[in-house]
Amino acid sequence: MNSNPFDIDPRLLHDSHELFSWNQCNIRLHKNASIPWLLIIPQTDHVELCDLPTDQLSQINQLSKVLGDYLKTTFSCEKINFAAIGNVVQQLHIHVVGRHRNDPVWPDVVWGNPYPKTEYSPAQISQHADDLLAYIHQEL
Amino acid sequence: MNSNPFDIDPRLLHDSHELFSWNQCNIRLHKNASIPWLLIIPQTDHVELCDLPTDQLSQINQLSKVLGDYLKTTFSCEKINFAAIGNVVQQLHIHVVGRHRNDPVWPDVVWGNPYPKTEYSPAQISQHADDLLAYIHQEL
Repeated sequence: MNSNPFDIDPRLLHDSHELFSWNQCNIRLHKNASIPWLLIIPQTDHVELCDLPTDQLSQINQLSKVLGDYLKTTFSCEKINFAAIGNVVQQLHIHVVGRHRNDPVWPDVVWGNPYPKTEYSPAQISQHADDLLAYIHQEL
Repeated sequence: MNSNPFDIDPRLLHDSHELFSWNQCNIRLHKNASIPWLLIIPQTDHVELCDLPTDQLSQINQLSKVLGDYLKTTFSCEKINFAAIGNVVQQLHIHVVGRHRNDPVWPDVVWGNPYPKTEYSPAQISQHADDLLAYIHQEL
């Protein structure tokens, strides 16, 4: 089921599992489970993160912090990589990537560096959706 | 002359020219002139962008917008890549990279993708420092 109330680029849909929508953002989990990687897709026509209205940007910053903390807590990540790139897919999407010095591309960035593919089970996806939403409700 | 009032990791100093300091941030220009690339180094002990106090994060967001607009205006960039990575250099530094579909690594990210090296002249560095500071004063 896709609960997002706005259109999302098919390439983003293809690469990630929907977790839930929260305050006009669709929160997604990158399909490759080898590196824990969340995506925030805000409902906006802006393509640059910094062009978002102040309120929306502030909300995304708060959300990013919680997502980063969730990755650190749940996956024992040591570093969060935060980025808005959008050279290929123009629709604004923010990467919150949990990194660990034992992950398959450390210390390189995840973009453009292939790494072994593993998959989340449907139960794991559902559990992350439940846990992350509970975490957001607790923190925000 | 290095006017920054706080210590900056030698690897960041090595890869970039100081432009100026502004509100507890050191603003630097990546040395490779093939892709226009600015760095914001805030005075902080935090290593994650999202862990900054709200006021400081808000200020960096505003600054990033102006830096991105400057890159678009001055270098005709079509896209801004905004990122805080820090897998190699832990000190918090924010990348504001101006991208163009004709640049040497488009659409790939700049990190980990080598590209031809060109250099700014001292006069160009000085001019960018003057122009960007004037732009910031005008916009913020």
